[in-house]
Amino acid sequence: MDRIGDKWSVLVIVELASGPRRFRELQRAVEGISQRMLTLTVRRLERDGLITRTVLAAVPPQVTYDLTDRGASLTHLVKQLADWSLAHKDAIGDSREDYDRANPGNEIR
Amino acid sequence: MDRIGDKWSVLVIVELASGPRRFRELQRAVEGISQRMLTLTVRRLERDGLITRTVLAAVPPQVTYDLTDRGASLTHLVKQLADWSLAHKDAIGDSREDYDRANPGNEIR
Repeated sequence: MDRIGDKWSVLVIVELASGPRRFRELQRAVEGISQRMLTLTVRRLERDGLITRTVLAAVPPQVTYDLTDRGASLTHLVKQLADWSLAHKDAIGDSREDYDRANPGNEIR
Repeated sequence: MDRIGDKWSVLVIVELASGPRRFRELQRAVEGISQRMLTLTVRRLERDGLITRTVLAAVPPQVTYDLTDRGASLTHLVKQLADWSLAHKDAIGDSREDYDRANPGNEIR
């Protein structure tokens, strides 16, 4: 379940919902993700059977990523998650500020 | 977004969807959660404005937790997430075994 809520996994799955992508295309589409984090994220998603990694015989070899059926069955849920987060982002930020003011030095920042 | 996918947050939200609970009741309902993790989880959820913490004047004082409107608006999504995870748990486990066999020593276990 942690994978599904992981921000970078969500954004990669949402991007692949529009079709197969190469690594560079994913890196451009998923704002703010480092090369290292994208490498880890696609490996985790591949390991969970949510995406496939296909190496095309070209010079240099090209790698494309695509959703599996399992990954595709998650897309609508993940999109709703992303939409909910976006819609509540500011309000959650305000709640956190209020909480931190009322509970200075709390350890859960 | 990480909060929403966090396993313990999901299980606490699903439990509170059935109504307010005291700390001990939550601890019994959410299988496998330690006291420390439950304390952290309810604080994080409170900080995000997803649950409220109410102290009842009793001896000893009683604390109850309940969903806020924002928390309640998340319940259907969180339940779908929990159901999806449960439905795909074994298949994901198999995929991980296959991946680890094909990629011995990979660092993303």
